[in-house]
Amino acid sequence: MDWASELGAWGAVSVAEEERGAHSGDVSGHAASLPQVVVWPRDGAGVAGILAWANERGVAVTPWGAGTSVEGNPIPVAGGILLSLARMDRILEVSLEGKYGVVEAGVKYRELNRALAGTGLHFAVEVGGDATVGGMIGNNAAGPKAVKYGATKEHVLGLEVVLADGRRMRTGSKAWKQSCGYNLTQLMVGSEGTLGVIIEATVRLTAVPEFVEVLVAEFGSVEEAVGCVGRMRGLDAGALEFLDGSFMGFLGEAERDTLFCEFHREGDGEAAERICLGGGAVSVRRGTEAADRERLWGARLRAYTAAGEAHAGSKLLTTDTAVPLGTFGAMVGYLREELVNRGLVGYLLGHVGDGNLHVILPYKDRAEWEKVKEFSRAAVGRSLELGGTASGEHGVGMGKREHLEAEHGREAVEVMRMIKRGMDPKGILNPGKVLPG
Amino acid sequence: MDWASELGAWGAVSVAEEERGAHSGDVSGHAASLPQVVVWPRDGAGVAGILAWANERGVAVTPWGAGTSVEGNPIPVAGGILLSLARMDRILEVSLEGKYGVVEAGVKYRELNRALAGTGLHFAVEVGGDATVGGMIGNNAAGPKAVKYGATKEHVLGLEVVLADGRRMRTGSKAWKQSCGYNLTQLMVGSEGTLGVIIEATVRLTAVPEFVEVLVAEFGSVEEAVGCVGRMRGLDAGALEFLDGSFMGFLGEAERDTLFCEFHREGDGEAAERICLGGGAVSVRRGTEAADRERLWGARLRAYTAAGEAHAGSKLLTTDTAVPLGTFGAMVGYLREELVNRGLVGYLLGHVGDGNLHVILPYKDRAEWEKVKEFSRAAVGRSLELGGTASGEHGVGMGKREHLEAEHGREAVEVMRMIKRGMDPKGILNPGKVLPG
Repeated sequence: MDWASELGAWGAVSVAEEERGAHSGDVSGHAASLPQVVVWPRDGAGVAGILAWANERGVAVTPWGAGTSVEGNPIPVAGGILLSLARMDRILEVSLEGKYGVVEAGVKYRELNRALAGTGLHFAVEVGGDATVGGMIGNNAAGPKAVKYGATKEHVLGLEVVLADGRRMRTGSKAWKQSCGYNLTQLMVGSEGTLGVIIEATVRLTAVPEFVEVLVAEFGSVEEAVGCVGRMRGLDAGALEFLDGSFMGFLGEAERDTLFCEFHREGDGEAAERICLGGGAVSVRRGTEAADRERLWGARLRAYTAAGEAHAGSKLLTTDTAVPLGTFGAMVGYLREELVNRGLVGYLLGHVGDGNLHVILPYKDRAEWEKVKEFSRAAVGRSLELGGTASGEHGVGMGKREHLEAEHGREAVEVMRMIKRGMDPKGILNPGKVLPG
Repeated sequence: MDWASELGAWGAVSVAEEERGAHSGDVSGHAASLPQVVVWPRDGAGVAGILAWANERGVAVTPWGAGTSVEGNPIPVAGGILLSLARMDRILEVSLEGKYGVVEAGVKYRELNRALAGTGLHFAVEVGGDATVGGMIGNNAAGPKAVKYGATKEHVLGLEVVLADGRRMRTGSKAWKQSCGYNLTQLMVGSEGTLGVIIEATVRLTAVPEFVEVLVAEFGSVEEAVGCVGRMRGLDAGALEFLDGSFMGFLGEAERDTLFCEFHREGDGEAAERICLGGGAVSVRRGTEAADRERLWGARLRAYTAAGEAHAGSKLLTTDTAVPLGTFGAMVGYLREELVNRGLVGYLLGHVGDGNLHVILPYKDRAEWEKVKEFSRAAVGRSLELGGTASGEHGVGMGKREHLEAEHGREAVEVMRMIKRGMDPKGILNPGKVLPG
């Protein structure tokens, strides 16, 4: 196939090994897969042209934002066209009065926030990777600030989507409130490019907090830490994070289950300190100055990187269960035991404020992969028993498809399949993801 | 048809004129329509039995919560079965630690909050009517607190739904965070009983504010009032309401455009007062004691009832546009002019914090109805021009179907139709609603 002459009208095209390789895997250990071609459309017409062409021929199309996913979400497992949104990176409109921004899908959220600096508004979702807004919407990403601001889904007012056959669909509006017809915006959020390609988004902009205080509290047990989080429910918490004692030790800190908290209202840090000291904390530190906050947050910030660097040559599997708030301690206890029982190394950290827990598990080869994968399955099983989910913020991708029916039941998965068939009858959009095979 | 012997196994059944009449219209002026039979199932098995029976025979089924809708959403326009959820009114579980409640669809939200009194948690959506949780979810209702807490959609963690053919589907989970497959929960929220019957909901419970201050500020113009609201964006506002000057005059108050605000953080009322006085307010009153707050909120609270009582013998049409935040003043200006141009009486009030504006229009007969309906069409037209919506919080029902395509475009409506066909192939579920004919 002469891809350049077939697709060149709609964007830059490359079949170079290097470009295909650079778009064959995300930041997870999921098996990479080369696309046949990488295309970078520059506008909606380009995306529409590519999809119409591919749909007619039954060629797979996998959308790509920044490749920072961790469940293999943008890996082109069926080859075909890798559709990169990276060059659709214009901020189209910012309305400070309307508190919304309109961006092309390839705009990175940090870039959007740089453009908003000094306005008093920001896009309030923060994730670890240098992700695009489109990718964050596709995966319904979240991160530490979700405890206050909600996941990405709560920041999307409207979308422009190119459907499988190249038709362009608008959803939502620029109003903050809308109750008018089926919520196609939320159907697209978290659909991981399997129902359409998001090319433009209208996102909510949120007031930047004028006051920020960081609190770090060390505990003798996870139950004490979780109990304190439960008692903080009236406070204006911008983040409520948990690092496991052994992980803290590994990071060179005191080997204690630790809460990393951020508060946005004066007095709440003090109130939280009282709660922590009354709830068993052995030490509490607080800071409001930028330098102090950064120092206090240090261990939390370097946790992921440190785990990776300590296992150079290994890949990492990261679990992503989220359980009902009151059961976080039980989940941590179960996973610690399972790590011991299975003789595995695993680093626990989580967004305790919303019940979302990650275990970072290094593995070197197929045999080790099987072991960490079995651990991950057990974690999901326990999460579902507790009323939780297989994936709190990473999406389904390749990694969680096998759990979809256990989590949602047969009827819900049948409805999902019906929607997928209706919106992508030829199955060209990001095949091999979300729905089980 | 002997309805009692056909449906009696699944719930109480009535064909009495009185019961059919009591379930033939909502609180709006939309034309009432008698169902052939009213059924009150007591559990999910009952709902499933009724739907399987009706689907086999192609009999229309219209779900009913409390009948407090204002767009004709639960009116059985095609007759058939009126399925009342009123007797499925059990609170099944409350988890204070997990911050969720599980309720049957017929539980009234005020009842849920009464049950939660003293726990420090509540279901944070407040609407004017004595609505059921299921009805609020079906319509994605909102109300004055949405500026802080969001609409009903942001409070639903999971659902149990009976599908058209009687299968039962679960969606979501009890975790606060979930990014795992297509968001069927949000597809059901706001679908007004046209895609399935919601029988059970897991809802978020939110901390009751420990501090509440009310502020009422009178302005010489709506632009000044809106400008001040824009400058309050860093404050912890629990409600930001607007009453038009003439409406205030009608209510016996000073004839000035007035903001009714609620703040949940100490000091924010004072900050808002400074903003209002610096932004043109001619008077500002504040209060933190319950009695003072009630007195200050008085005019806002009695506004709807007073408008209705002043026009005894008339019906009321209430518009429900929501526009981007910065354009609220332009919308008010346009509607005032249109009222004058058309020689209509209309009372303006709105949730200015989220751009949602209502005009209450009395009408007596068909001729007057045509005039207020034309006004409503013009309001929607202007809202869409401004980037807004036909319906901020009342849903589509019968009243807004004609605007669906103008608001969302042909492609989105086609996708909505595809979903409707897939989930309700015989079209038995609440026919004549949401999608245009």
